[in-house]
Amino acid sequence: MEEKQPESRGKPIRCRAAICRKAGEPLQIEEVEVAAPKAWEVRIKIICTSLCYSDVTFWKMEVPPAIFPRIFGHEAVGIVESVGENVKEVKEGDTVIPTLVTECQDCSDCNSKKSNKCSKFPFKVSSSLPRDGTTRFTDSKGEEIYHFIHVSSFSEYTVVDIINVTKIDPSIPPNRACLIGCAISTGVGAAWKTANVEEGSTVAIFGLGAIGLAVAEGARLRGASKIIGLDLNPNKFEIGKKFGVTDFVNPSNCGNKPVHEVIAEMTDGGADYCFECVGNVSVVNQAYASCRKGWGKTIVLGIHKPGSEVSFSSYEVVHSGKVIMGSMFGDVKPKTDIPRFVKSYMDKELRLDEFVTHEVQFEDINKAFDLLLGGKSIRCVIWMEKRNPPIKITNKE
Amino acid sequence: MEEKQPESRGKPIRCRAAICRKAGEPLQIEEVEVAAPKAWEVRIKIICTSLCYSDVTFWKMEVPPAIFPRIFGHEAVGIVESVGENVKEVKEGDTVIPTLVTECQDCSDCNSKKSNKCSKFPFKVSSSLPRDGTTRFTDSKGEEIYHFIHVSSFSEYTVVDIINVTKIDPSIPPNRACLIGCAISTGVGAAWKTANVEEGSTVAIFGLGAIGLAVAEGARLRGASKIIGLDLNPNKFEIGKKFGVTDFVNPSNCGNKPVHEVIAEMTDGGADYCFECVGNVSVVNQAYASCRKGWGKTIVLGIHKPGSEVSFSSYEVVHSGKVIMGSMFGDVKPKTDIPRFVKSYMDKELRLDEFVTHEVQFEDINKAFDLLLGGKSIRCVIWMEKRNPPIKITNKE
Ligand SMILES: [Zn+2]
Ligand SMILES: [Zn+2]
Ligand SMILES: [Zn+2]
Ligand SMILES: [Zn+2]
Repeated sequence: MEEKQPESRGKPIRCRAAICRKAGEPLQIEEVEVAAPKAWEVRIKIICTSLCYSDVTFWKMEVPPAIFPRIFGHEAVGIVESVGENVKEVKEGDTVIPTLVTECQDCSDCNSKKSNKCSKFPFKVSSSLPRDGTTRFTDSKGEEIYHFIHVSSFSEYTVVDIINVTKIDPSIPPNRACLIGCAISTGVGAAWKTANVEEGSTVAIFGLGAIGLAVAEGARLRGASKIIGLDLNPNKFEIGKKFGVTDFVNPSNCGNKPVHEVIAEMTDGGADYCFECVGNVSVVNQAYASCRKGWGKTIVLGIHKPGSEVSFSSYEVVHSGKVIMGSMFGDVKPKTDIPRFVKSYMDKELRLDEFVTHEVQFEDINKAFDLLLGGKSIRCVIWMEKRNPPIKITNKE
Repeated sequence: MEEKQPESRGKPIRCRAAICRKAGEPLQIEEVEVAAPKAWEVRIKIICTSLCYSDVTFWKMEVPPAIFPRIFGHEAVGIVESVGENVKEVKEGDTVIPTLVTECQDCSDCNSKKSNKCSKFPFKVSSSLPRDGTTRFTDSKGEEIYHFIHVSSFSEYTVVDIINVTKIDPSIPPNRACLIGCAISTGVGAAWKTANVEEGSTVAIFGLGAIGLAVAEGARLRGASKIIGLDLNPNKFEIGKKFGVTDFVNPSNCGNKPVHEVIAEMTDGGADYCFECVGNVSVVNQAYASCRKGWGKTIVLGIHKPGSEVSFSSYEVVHSGKVIMGSMFGDVKPKTDIPRFVKSYMDKELRLDEFVTHEVQFEDINKAFDLLLGGKSIRCVIWMEKRNPPIKITNKE
């Protein structure tokens, strides 16, 4: 049923989707009905999707903004199956990346180079339904299934608003393209757009998950002279080297010396740019303390516990000259920046291959969760189409 | 004894100084001995000094870093009386502005355009003695008197390290030049150098003391389209207009509406630049909330209570795209930037005249304290030289 028929246009499609019915429980592959796209909407046949830590965070979450049953997945690439009224930007057959970030191209934020925070359709993590407030997914019993941050790519077909869709060069391999849908935009964008890392500068990255490694890759491409990775897992140095990490610090191995002193000794008194990719307020303070006085920037990327606060000494804020900033989706404006990332990969600049440590078929999607939760994968790509012979779980490391 | 003799060079000078012997007590004009400048030092005959709120803060302070007896004053202009060994940058007769900020011109910070935080001689509010750790002031009983933040301008003569001295064009009137020694550098610098306010942008200034007004003046010169002043004192709008304040908000008159909503309605959802010039952590949060999402910058200038902390929601930091930064002495590098401020005044761009609401003779220095504490003055200039007829307290408003 994953086979697209030309006559599917305007009609519901029945296909397979991985539904999460209860927090923390394995996803269930079920048949769902995916409604035809309404005005401004695009129905996408997903080719590949990869598992991001945000999927896991919301899969585990038992209280609002969590909501069930839901179809997760937000790092993906696909082909336009059909489009709703008013959609002129893409057409059937186009290769597209859906994104959690919206770009209406009409509001003062979308018209500014400085913002990726659309004010006409503001990002709300709790509400992921299309703009008319109704779902496009129903299960075989007719029950409605919720979307996830405007994407829901753990389904053979999904419906996404055109403001969440970017057309890309179809020649990029799908199991590379999908990464740009979240981790690459978030990490490389944080280095390029939020921090604007300069040639010859020093960078410290707190947390070497996929996002932290993507920050390293962004810093490497900008010509940073020193890229210090910090992680409690000593194995992260090896993979970090693939993305330009030049030095490694295990915060649990610093003895009595505070981490910021270790960083200060490795740099000229502190790193020019410190990226917090862990999602922990005390790591934010470590990053801030590790910044070079006078000009150091602390960039907060981590997803923190709801309600958590970051605190800084007033005296330090006034007298250190350090800057505190956050980065959401790397300040990336999808329709402008995603095609640039694709081109950079095709031009053999941006490294994507090394992020994909595992690949599985859709029916093994729960194994992707196990691999990420076990700290074994950086990115596990999930192929939607049944293959013959089927893909075994592959480990590229 | 304030008369400089050519033969004073290399010898102590006896002159008048206003000494603070105990926190909060009126200053006493006494005879002091000002030692000859040692190596790297400059002895300056002070012409004019003005009273800044930091003098008052440390005059009131009863516990460390407060220290007594001490000679306050740090916003001043004077003439070089003599120089110590190794001083080549200035010579006898030069007009100079001493500054609390040091610029050794030798360390990585001084050599960077991005920092005014000399790492060879870091700013320490508690220690204000010359680099050899001894004082240059003794009273008539031979007791040592402490310096104040490297300047101590409430004395007819003072000794300042060459790294705290900037030579300026002598044609600027001294009762204008002195302001550049602190308030103008701090405020105009915050707008120009820290925030880099752009033409057409919107600015909100929390607190319209001399620093806040200097921020407004900096924003006015940069062509900000809207400069909103916020102050609990409604009279501040009139004086604010002289420095480009276009709109006024009295936070106590906003009814049930939070201040940030008032600012959002006056701008496109928030000001591009919000300056906190009050020194209160809750005002920092007000300023942060009043910033435009996507690109707004909160610049903290206020002197906060020792040990105070500023807190922000992690979610807001990551998702709002707003930047938090502090500004110390406006990120001004004295030897480069102060001559530019002088030129800007001489070119009739930068407004300084309007800051001087009062002028007194040195013997009336305690009246300058009364005027500032009573909220009556923006800046009261203190003339060191006895005049005939003596200057009466003048109020220019
Ligand atoms: Zn928009
Ligand atoms: Zn993600
Ligand atoms: Zn220096
Ligand atoms: Zn001052």
